[in-house]
Amino acid sequence: MTVEVISVGTELLLGNIVNTNAQFLAEKCALLGLSMYNQSVVGDNRERLKEAITTALHRADIIFLTGGLGPTEDDLTKETCGEVMGLPLVEDEHTRERIENYFKNSIFKEIPENNWKQALVPEGALVLDNDNGTAPGLILEKDGKRMILLPGPPNELIPLFQKQVAPYLQKLRPELIVSRMVKICGKGESQVEEELLDLIDKQTNPTIATYAKTGEVHVRVTASAPTEEVADKLIRPVVKEIKKRFGVCVYSTREEETLEMAVVRLLKKYELTLATAESCTGGLVAGRIVNVPGASEVFREGFVTYSNKAKRKHLDVSKSTLKKYGAVSRETAREMAVGGVFATDSDICVAITGLAGPDGGTEEKPVGLVYMACCLGDKVTVEKYQFKGNRSKIREQSVVRALDLVRRTVAENYGK
Amino acid sequence: MTVEVISVGTELLLGNIVNTNAQFLAEKCALLGLSMYNQSVVGDNRERLKEAITTALHRADIIFLTGGLGPTEDDLTKETCGEVMGLPLVEDEHTRERIENYFKNSIFKEIPENNWKQALVPEGALVLDNDNGTAPGLILEKDGKRMILLPGPPNELIPLFQKQVAPYLQKLRPELIVSRMVKICGKGESQVEEELLDLIDKQTNPTIATYAKTGEVHVRVTASAPTEEVADKLIRPVVKEIKKRFGVCVYSTREEETLEMAVVRLLKKYELTLATAESCTGGLVAGRIVNVPGASEVFREGFVTYSNKAKRKHLDVSKSTLKKYGAVSRETAREMAVGGVFATDSDICVAITGLAGPDGGTEEKPVGLVYMACCLGDKVTVEKYQFKGNRSKIREQSVVRALDLVRRTVAENYGK
Repeated sequence: MTVEVISVGTELLLGNIVNTNAQFLAEKCALLGLSMYNQSVVGDNRERLKEAITTALHRADIIFLTGGLGPTEDDLTKETCGEVMGLPLVEDEHTRERIENYFKNSIFKEIPENNWKQALVPEGALVLDNDNGTAPGLILEKDGKRMILLPGPPNELIPLFQKQVAPYLQKLRPELIVSRMVKICGKGESQVEEELLDLIDKQTNPTIATYAKTGEVHVRVTASAPTEEVADKLIRPVVKEIKKRFGVCVYSTREEETLEMAVVRLLKKYELTLATAESCTGGLVAGRIVNVPGASEVFREGFVTYSNKAKRKHLDVSKSTLKKYGAVSRETAREMAVGGVFATDSDICVAITGLAGPDGGTEEKPVGLVYMACCLGDKVTVEKYQFKGNRSKIREQSVVRALDLVRRTVAENYGK
Repeated sequence: MTVEVISVGTELLLGNIVNTNAQFLAEKCALLGLSMYNQSVVGDNRERLKEAITTALHRADIIFLTGGLGPTEDDLTKETCGEVMGLPLVEDEHTRERIENYFKNSIFKEIPENNWKQALVPEGALVLDNDNGTAPGLILEKDGKRMILLPGPPNELIPLFQKQVAPYLQKLRPELIVSRMVKICGKGESQVEEELLDLIDKQTNPTIATYAKTGEVHVRVTASAPTEEVADKLIRPVVKEIKKRFGVCVYSTREEETLEMAVVRLLKKYELTLATAESCTGGLVAGRIVNVPGASEVFREGFVTYSNKAKRKHLDVSKSTLKKYGAVSRETAREMAVGGVFATDSDICVAITGLAGPDGGTEEKPVGLVYMACCLGDKVTVEKYQFKGNRSKIREQSVVRALDLVRRTVAENYGK
């Protein structure tokens, strides 16, 4: 089954907002095994919207329309879809009641007149209750084609999709679509693809797809099967094989688990505490750790030692090391990590020092050169990286690698 | 003149990435006075791409194509555009040399064979040098229609657009479009709009538009005029009026200046040094400051004191304060800021302590409660905020407000 997204809203054409809804729907549709070949954006203009809908109807079985369901005169999505499908607008009693209730609990004393417009729906439409706004979602069906109309604000669209649209779409398929994610850090996308090429080529069910993220690669294994159990049987050996091939580089097989969550989970599991000692990353590694609710159990303090003096004062990096090797060096990274453990009495300290640029690079030490060290007990691992890109790219990659260095250090010394 | 964006890439249709390029181009085109009525997304598929280009050529004068310029077989944008416009591919000597040079400075020993494909360009194309990758940008012109091909990675697309495409587009217009930005922190978008309503309603040239960013509002004043000088005369009084209305809340009128840049600029101007003492923001304030190249002049060190013990040890927050008022309190924030100045010998310290949730909130101290303090000499300003949203929203807003607190403190004590 093919699906297409039409995003409606002049604010998208003016660049006022980023179209995160299209990304959300695209990802969810891919997960449900629906094929998407086109997306489009049109403004709040009846003629152009009509043209976009007509074109999409020729190409796809299911069309998502987002936005343009509000109460103002600019909002034309419902009207135009109804017109193209030949369905007149009729009042939906249930939605009228919901609007009344919605405003009862609001700061408005009277219901703005134009809000009643939102109780009108194309005849025969399936109405999806919107718990976060007044515009309901709508599903129109005719001649084997389906239109799914959703409100533009993501905090309305996302729950509507998850609670009502996803189950609806799932039912359209003869088979269930089940997928599992394998998250990898420390390998590039092309490297991962190459190492999986035989599997990717061989597999038709489950399928294997790779997704590049900053410093990470996510591999999704998706099976189509009549039951959850059968799907699971198809997926499990493939996931096992991928995990085997990438070993310690696999940091998670949980859909929602980020790299920092995996780090915090491991630290908690082995009751370890972590400290950070950051130079070029300037606090971003600590910032990522603190993203995780409950991080306080394993993370108590960190240093941003941007100057040499701060490195000496807080981390006891020796003057002679800084002089002889420089702040961006294997030796300084090592002393920062060791000093961080001592200064904080933590079990582990990760230290990062590098040249994020744009200035300050030399032939010997070019911009992008980053050293990071991880100290655990009396063991210190030091790694050298040469990153590409601008200042923020270099720093982002450093953060990911530093988090992963902590994860690998724990995994190698304690277990995964 | 009408313009349209075609984003090419299966990764967009699978929802792997958000289409920030379309937003960027839409905003920039609006700025240049170009009308955009449609955007579309297609995958790496020759037939569908051809169809999208053909449709766009009927509707628009200028078509942007982003993505699909890489070295792999999937990358078809250049080939397909050339085909539709009837322009055969020819080797561009200059680009060949640039690719050679690009790889000379890389970790690759040999240039991968498929990279030479990137030296092929449609005959007669204007080649735009890409300083951040191997795929050049291209401009094709034929029969009054123009196609502008840009590489997909934003760190390549954005500088290419700004340095080469914007001046090219500017020249196509009979009138100049000039705009200036007024960046405001500390007021909500609806508040800003309300305070500018009379100006927005009255103005036709220049026009005034507001853009909401996390914790900030940007106001763009845009004039159309035959010369830069005339445009400037139209814009200046409006910018002056906006600055007057928002006073110290205006942090910049420079297009490219971020809040952290404005903070670093001010600190440099008055030769002040800054330290950070962060709890719930966990290093993100320091991380933002370090975003600014050359921040080392004004920023030397920061603390992430996530535990009470760390607050006591590094910032000398008293045990009794923590016991009596708690870690999230006006008193603790104050002591953190004062302690940070003492511990680092900096001129200023900004401290943040709050409840980012999702757990740990009480009726008295709900999730989202954040205290921040700024110490400068013997003056300490403490502010209390109650933020809405999830953990990361609360932290992001805290970071913006903390940076702005530093900025306002310097501005009020030394000048803007």
